[in-house]
Amino acid sequence: MVQGYSTKLIKIFKEKNIGIGSKIKIIKDNEIYEGILMPRIEGDNEIIIIKLENGYNIGIKYNENTKIEKLGEVNISKKPNPIQNFDKNKPTIFILHTGGTIASKVDYRTGGVEASFEPEDLIAMFPELAEIANIKSKLIRRMFSEDMRFEHHQIMAREIAKIANEVDGIIITHGTDTLHYTSASLAFMLEDLPIPVIIVGSQRSSDRPSADSAMNLICAAKFIARTDFAGVAVCMHATTNDDFCYILHACKVRKMHTSSRDAFKPINASPIAKVWFKEDKIEFLMNDYFKKDKKRELKLKDKFEEKVAIVKFYPGFDEKILEFYEKEGYKGIVLEGFGLGQVPINEIDEYTHHNKKNFEILKRMNEKGCIIVASSQTIFGRVNLNVYSTGRDMQSIGIIGCEDMHPETAYVKLKWLLGNYEKEKVKELFKQNLRGEISERTL
Amino acid sequence: MVQGYSTKLIKIFKEKNIGIGSKIKIIKDNEIYEGILMPRIEGDNEIIIIKLENGYNIGIKYNENTKIEKLGEVNISKKPNPIQNFDKNKPTIFILHTGGTIASKVDYRTGGVEASFEPEDLIAMFPELAEIANIKSKLIRRMFSEDMRFEHHQIMAREIAKIANEVDGIIITHGTDTLHYTSASLAFMLEDLPIPVIIVGSQRSSDRPSADSAMNLICAAKFIARTDFAGVAVCMHATTNDDFCYILHACKVRKMHTSSRDAFKPINASPIAKVWFKEDKIEFLMNDYFKKDKKRELKLKDKFEEKVAIVKFYPGFDEKILEFYEKEGYKGIVLEGFGLGQVPINEIDEYTHHNKKNFEILKRMNEKGCIIVASSQTIFGRVNLNVYSTGRDMQSIGIIGCEDMHPETAYVKLKWLLGNYEKEKVKELFKQNLRGEISERTL
Repeated sequence: MVQGYSTKLIKIFKEKNIGIGSKIKIIKDNEIYEGILMPRIEGDNEIIIIKLENGYNIGIKYNENTKIEKLGEVNISKKPNPIQNFDKNKPTIFILHTGGTIASKVDYRTGGVEASFEPEDLIAMFPELAEIANIKSKLIRRMFSEDMRFEHHQIMAREIAKIANEVDGIIITHGTDTLHYTSASLAFMLEDLPIPVIIVGSQRSSDRPSADSAMNLICAAKFIARTDFAGVAVCMHATTNDDFCYILHACKVRKMHTSSRDAFKPINASPIAKVWFKEDKIEFLMNDYFKKDKKRELKLKDKFEEKVAIVKFYPGFDEKILEFYEKEGYKGIVLEGFGLGQVPINEIDEYTHHNKKNFEILKRMNEKGCIIVASSQTIFGRVNLNVYSTGRDMQSIGIIGCEDMHPETAYVKLKWLLGNYEKEKVKELFKQNLRGEISERTL
Repeated sequence: MVQGYSTKLIKIFKEKNIGIGSKIKIIKDNEIYEGILMPRIEGDNEIIIIKLENGYNIGIKYNENTKIEKLGEVNISKKPNPIQNFDKNKPTIFILHTGGTIASKVDYRTGGVEASFEPEDLIAMFPELAEIANIKSKLIRRMFSEDMRFEHHQIMAREIAKIANEVDGIIITHGTDTLHYTSASLAFMLEDLPIPVIIVGSQRSSDRPSADSAMNLICAAKFIARTDFAGVAVCMHATTNDDFCYILHACKVRKMHTSSRDAFKPINASPIAKVWFKEDKIEFLMNDYFKKDKKRELKLKDKFEEKVAIVKFYPGFDEKILEFYEKEGYKGIVLEGFGLGQVPINEIDEYTHHNKKNFEILKRMNEKGCIIVASSQTIFGRVNLNVYSTGRDMQSIGIIGCEDMHPETAYVKLKWLLGNYEKEKVKELFKQNLRGEISERTL
């Protein structure tokens, strides 16, 4: 019954007849906390989560000097969820939930881990949503995003395709770890998307006062309801404050911090827009964006080639790694090279024979039909294989530069192109800007 | 004679009896340029480089409408290099050159690609150096840094060890692409370094007005001459302006842009200091740093384990990649995971059996003695394997978190530890801060 806590804590709770929903008092370091014991979903299982009078959850780390007392039982009155009245003057937003911390608050409210994720649950948690739009919802998965694979992206794309002409916009709630791979993947699969599909995540779990889920979700809903934007984008905190979110381009965004709330940064592009949380204010930072047209027909291109890899280079790289991909018959390789896209291929002294072998293997792979593209581990900036002789030698064996796509977007694009087009077309389309993934050169 | 140009241009130059050092006039797009033809070292071989009256080099892209005329020959007077008088009141700086664009200006001056790299050549190009210090120099290599391997790092470390108690500081000129791998590598190899070793690179080749080599080199020399800092650091442009350089920590720095002059960014740490270019001003941004002591004895620990790799994860990652490293008997693996350090290891539905296999292989590798550490592809922020169940499962099979080391520093450290210590000691030292590579937790 005391879900998620350590064996030690479960024992203590049992002794004191404390369960989820019990009103308890915790005394630690001369501080007294009173509230309702909540279940743990994740994280340190010796942190006790209680809901305070003011509605906030806090976590108190248990140690030997922590005293716990039971104050009584609270009838967590299962008060009926608010009933949503369909308002034909409001847009309709469909929320697809895939997992991550963003909906863990829902769990706490119902007192269990497996929340039903009905629209009414969401509205009870985030009442602002009902003011903005009519809300529909569906639970697709409940998974950590690090476990997500392209099959899951396909499930999302197919769900979107089913409803794309019936609603005004879609929000996808998603774990943050691979969120930007998913956003690029959806952007490529969903050609001519009639409506906005906004992906939101949450960097801080809802048992912390710094939780960012509500703001990200509400800003996404506002952006859908109040603008004519269409296409896939990401809505996340722009700064560490709770003032506004950025709407970020699906293919020009990357998680750039392990834990901060503004972890998602635009890469080689401007954010699309700023959406304020408390104010009724949205500012576009790009003039030119894809516009909503609910009648436009979506083309779902949802295949991916399996045998594509990102190969990261570093000093001391062993050419046998490349040989592995050659032997396994890989169809596409994204080189995560250095600087302007170079990888070590020059034998210049007695120590660099490995480098020369890299060149020979890449040459053979290209001859066998593998498409090899070069990106940079600097992440920011544009690859250019024309500047140095190394880059020109790479081009001479068919290697294509990724322009200003960062390695992860280049990977998703190559995997998608190889799944949906013939080889020569793949090469042609890889260099073209299809979904805003390549910015125009400014010089 | 017309080094580095395209066959077409070489033909045109020959017809007009133009050689390197000829005074020429170029007319293109109604603009007239006059100057001395320079050799090309790198880059687009249809860009003609001329040295203008004012001393700057410019590049003019040749096309069919470009007219070239010979104006005459200029006697590039091989005026004798300035003679350096040893000044016992000035510190002595040893410059070790390894390659990269930083010294290409030297090449232009002598009119050939293979400059001798004598101290006098350097002083002729960068006269400020002689005002700051007595200059000694040695050419170690002339190579692109993408080709550099740990054998080259070892050559540098051994050269440094030879002279570390004889000079006041060392500057290493280096290509930028793998500069931050080298800085970490040297920092680990050179324990108790008595003096500063400052690595400088140049993002723009010297045939462009935006060349940054002089400023980076001179700021490094000033920092050595005027502070008591010891240890390995990087000196590069702090902004895109020519106002000041940052001195960046050897293990907390990364190239974060393909081409901009301020490409080198501090990662999870403050820069050590700001060094102004034109002003006589140096500001430390850290109070606590390792101090110079010319009598301190350097301990050279210059071994590396060869069988260490960075393995980058992405959605769709095939577990056979991990199996390859297992079969090859790798001794150390740096997982470049997601978010707080997680990699896909959970089988939660019919699509995630690959993830479960990752877990099994990592478990086996750990049992066979491979040291596996987890870093994050977000680059910024600290890894934490305690927050989610995935991280706790990873710890249960011996995987160690990299704290706030970015993947490249973690890689160099693991490779170095495995080269110099026994396995149990490696595990212990990996978690400790040895050279400033791990910051203290602030929370």
